[in-house]
Amino acid sequence: MSEMIRILGIDPALRSAGWGVIEADAAGRLAFVAAGEIKPDPKLEMGARLACLHADLMAILAEFRPAMAAVEETFVNANPRSALMLGQARGVCLLAPASAGLPVAEYPANSIKKAVTGVGHADKRQVQAMIRVLLPKAGKQGADAADALAVAICHSHHAAAAGVSAQARRSA
Amino acid sequence: MSEMIRILGIDPALRSAGWGVIEADAAGRLAFVAAGEIKPDPKLEMGARLACLHADLMAILAEFRPAMAAVEETFVNANPRSALMLGQARGVCLLAPASAGLPVAEYPANSIKKAVTGVGHADKRQVQAMIRVLLPKAGKQGADAADALAVAICHSHHAAAAGVSAQARRSA
Repeated sequence: MSEMIRILGIDPALRSAGWGVIEADAAGRLAFVAAGEIKPDPKLEMGARLACLHADLMAILAEFRPAMAAVEETFVNANPRSALMLGQARGVCLLAPASAGLPVAEYPANSIKKAVTGVGHADKRQVQAMIRVLLPKAGKQGADAADALAVAICHSHHAAAAGVSAQARRSA
Repeated sequence: MSEMIRILGIDPALRSAGWGVIEADAAGRLAFVAAGEIKPDPKLEMGARLACLHADLMAILAEFRPAMAAVEETFVNANPRSALMLGQARGVCLLAPASAGLPVAEYPANSIKKAVTGVGHADKRQVQAMIRVLLPKAGKQGADAADALAVAICHSHHAAAAGVSAQARRSA
């Protein structure tokens, strides 16, 4: 069996940010490691909420030591105010793995849904159901944790392809 | 002379984030401490740019040890994509002082302009000119550094008022 790469996926949000850690190899084999949701107290001021999100992500990075990370490219809706708020949480979700020295990939929501369900317009419940199929040991995860595991799976497809070419370069 | 409070002001942006540290007392006296602009390499990936911004802000907090911070409430324009990008930088600007344990205030751009020029619709050059008047030792600062000093001055007005009431509570 080839080397397993540990990947952290993040579904960025201010109210409930999903995170999921998987292991994947170049042959596409997947293993569940851990997942959860970060819900900073909404009564805190914005800086403190972001500091909670950051502290939890740094603790997850320290505990599970992933080799790479991927973050969902947030759906930008028609409301610039919501986009700004989401952007603030997303900035922290990109920052945490980057400041830990990890490469951080970004994928649009459609690519992530397609990677796990085969269709780009799957809803949250379809993603949750497919996560139970692809990662049976994950058990029943919340919708945001399942989304984060889907981000990690999506990245494993790209990382596997990149890994193969990196190995090819090394042996050349 | 009453106690001077050290305040960090931040004008959040991804390309050029302004920062400025001042000292202020309850009587409204102001003193310039330091200011500058953080310009992460735009060729880096987003996570790495945010990590640069965060590292520079943490270094500024460690060097100048402000007691409180204030961040400009970003103007939310009609483009949700730009709002998301700006939000990412803003999240990091709110996070850095909050994770250092500082209270972080937020002020709308109009309040900040009004605090230093007397009018809410002043342009960047008017703010720069007034910063030279209010903080002569600041010398000639870039527009983003001047904006950040204006954020700190705006907060000093509110902090002075809050300081007086805090003192009143302590002596009651």
